[in-house]
Amino acid sequence: MSNSTVEKYKKERQKSDDIVMKYAGAPIKRFYSLDSQVYHDGALSAKTKELLGLVASLVLRCDECIKYHIMRCYGEGVNDGEFEEALEIGLVVGGSITIPHLRRAFEAWDELKQTQ
Amino acid sequence: MSNSTVEKYKKERQKSDDIVMKYAGAPIKRFYSLDSQVYHDGALSAKTKELLGLVASLVLRCDECIKYHIMRCYGEGVNDGEFEEALEIGLVVGGSITIPHLRRAFEAWDELKQTQ
Amino acid sequence: MSNSTVEKYKKERQKSDDIVMKYAGAPIKRFYSLDSQVYHDGALSAKTKELLGLVASLVLRCDECIKYHIMRCYGEGVNDGEFEEALEIGLVVGGSITIPHLRRAFEAWDELKQTQ
Amino acid sequence: MSNSTVEKYKKERQKSDDIVMKYAGAPIKRFYSLDSQVYHDGALSAKTKELLGLVASLVLRCDECIKYHIMRCYGEGVNDGEFEEALEIGLVVGGSITIPHLRRAFEAWDELKQTQ
Amino acid sequence: MSNSTVEKYKKERQKSDDIVMKYAGAPIKRFYSLDSQVYHDGALSAKTKELLGLVASLVLRCDECIKYHIMRCYGEGVNDGEFEEALEIGLVVGGSITIPHLRRAFEAWDELKQTQ
Amino acid sequence: MSNSTVEKYKKERQKSDDIVMKYAGAPIKRFYSLDSQVYHDGALSAKTKELLGLVASLVLRCDECIKYHIMRCYGEGVNDGEFEEALEIGLVVGGSITIPHLRRAFEAWDELKQTQ
Repeated sequence: MSNSTVEKYKKERQKSDDIVMKYAGAPIKRFYSLDSQVYHDGALSAKTKELLGLVASLVLRCDECIKYHIMRCYGEGVNDGEFEEALEIGLVVGGSITIPHLRRAFEAWDELKQTQ
Repeated sequence: MSNSTVEKYKKERQKSDDIVMKYAGAPIKRFYSLDSQVYHDGALSAKTKELLGLVASLVLRCDECIKYHIMRCYGEGVNDGEFEEALEIGLVVGGSITIPHLRRAFEAWDELKQTQ
Repeated sequence: MSNSTVEKYKKERQKSDDIVMKYAGAPIKRFYSLDSQVYHDGALSAKTKELLGLVASLVLRCDECIKYHIMRCYGEGVNDGEFEEALEIGLVVGGSITIPHLRRAFEAWDELKQTQ
Repeated sequence: MSNSTVEKYKKERQKSDDIVMKYAGAPIKRFYSLDSQVYHDGALSAKTKELLGLVASLVLRCDECIKYHIMRCYGEGVNDGEFEEALEIGLVVGGSITIPHLRRAFEAWDELKQTQ
Repeated sequence: MSNSTVEKYKKERQKSDDIVMKYAGAPIKRFYSLDSQVYHDGALSAKTKELLGLVASLVLRCDECIKYHIMRCYGEGVNDGEFEEALEIGLVVGGSITIPHLRRAFEAWDELKQTQ
Repeated sequence: MSNSTVEKYKKERQKSDDIVMKYAGAPIKRFYSLDSQVYHDGALSAKTKELLGLVASLVLRCDECIKYHIMRCYGEGVNDGEFEEALEIGLVVGGSITIPHLRRAFEAWDELKQTQ
């Protein structure tokens, strides 16, 4: 995930969300707003919250969600050790069924680190 | 999902099912038959049943199943408002983990509407 | 689920929600509000929406959620045939793993019908 | 799970299924029949099939389903080592989230062994 | 969850685990050891790790797991605001299907706070 | 899945795991070791264990995991009838939501058989 990969990802996501918003009524718009709000700094830091989002996404096995939180974790200054320990918990809680997602998570992290 | 996309999808599905049927014993064949039967008109209309299948597929996060029920919903005359409200329920029940599937659902719906 | 059982259920739910609200910040309150809003009459009737909520709850195997939507379905005038056909879809989509919940769903429905 | 516990369990299950069957249309009846059929002796023995049902139930975390397959495994002559190794796989595939079910599985097995 | 409730809970858990260990081969023992190890202080604090375990348990909807991590969070000095914000994320990621577990989580937290 | 497809798959998997291991601490390494250990011959044969892994992967709907266990089942001498009956159980337990994975499973099996 080089800068250009991240930019490309964001553009595609935006394009998709534009289509969602073309049809969305108030509840979907409110859900989107809520989904952004819960990751803001508060009693817990945005960094900790992104780690929570990452582990929740890993145990529920959603690659797009994992990828999104990896980019956000990286942006919030999560380091290698913190990233790895969060994924350890996801792996132990969620079991070997999460391993394909774990692989893609470390690949995305590795790419992100090498190019930024 | 233009007419040709829908046709292509149906052909691939048929090709896959031909391979399943090459190996399938009676229980798999009976399951396939049951899976078709429960969506027929009855006390509930086929249209309502397709919406039930759509929401079940969204909360269980199966893109192929969502896509299939979108095409069937479209065929049963579901309109934009009905489609959006069904997905709203799926989103609220299933949470933000369903959002990547929600995006693809609206993209497929949008494509279907523009080309048919 | 006689009238008194329904009342008891509602009271316990309210008591629990009072504790949630004692701690809840804005996002949880907004989620609760959203969770109520998506089941209101709109392009789809409240009755259809409750059936969507019921099937989503069955395939995700949440007894409390199933029970709640059963009471709401009953209140919206869902009849035996409609109820059964919605559960059929949940069973076929979600598989035999839903059977224990299916049993409790029919037991609750049967009790509700006999006492109201 | 003494003989009397197993008997009690079977009676309750039958009573529940009687209520299901009071409302069930053809698809639910066919599903029940299918659900019985796939565990019969065939290319795989009934014993192996019960182990498959047990592990599927463990990773999907359904206590009633686990309990049912434990009784059936016991009936098919599964021994301690076979039972433990099947659960090992379920634990590793499904992760620590299965541990509460794993505990109840070994408790049921232990009770079954001590009283029969 | 008064001190005596917590003690009772620990005793029952130990009793169950004693039965697991009566049958467990090396892999289950290693899994248990791993399951303890990943929550130790490291690059991330034990406190953050317990919050990760809590949110993972909420989105996977396991009451026993939630309860366990609540007791551990309390022991690690998590405060009301931190606890609530972690659950907010779980609710938004996992959807309304988590609400019954959310209710029990706040009830357990409330009880824990009032009696210790 | 010809020999060359299987080889390609193994190489990609190895490449991914190399990246995982670049970051992995002791718990992830131990989990990987455990994940290999539970499928070894023991009270249950490796063949039966691969079938358990296959069905667990099907009901949890993980294509990579299914693919992996299919190759291993094939290697352990599972025949068509055994393979089909294991998948029957997965389909009935997991429901129609598993059908897209079932299709890919039979396609992979069919390819494997035709080219080896």
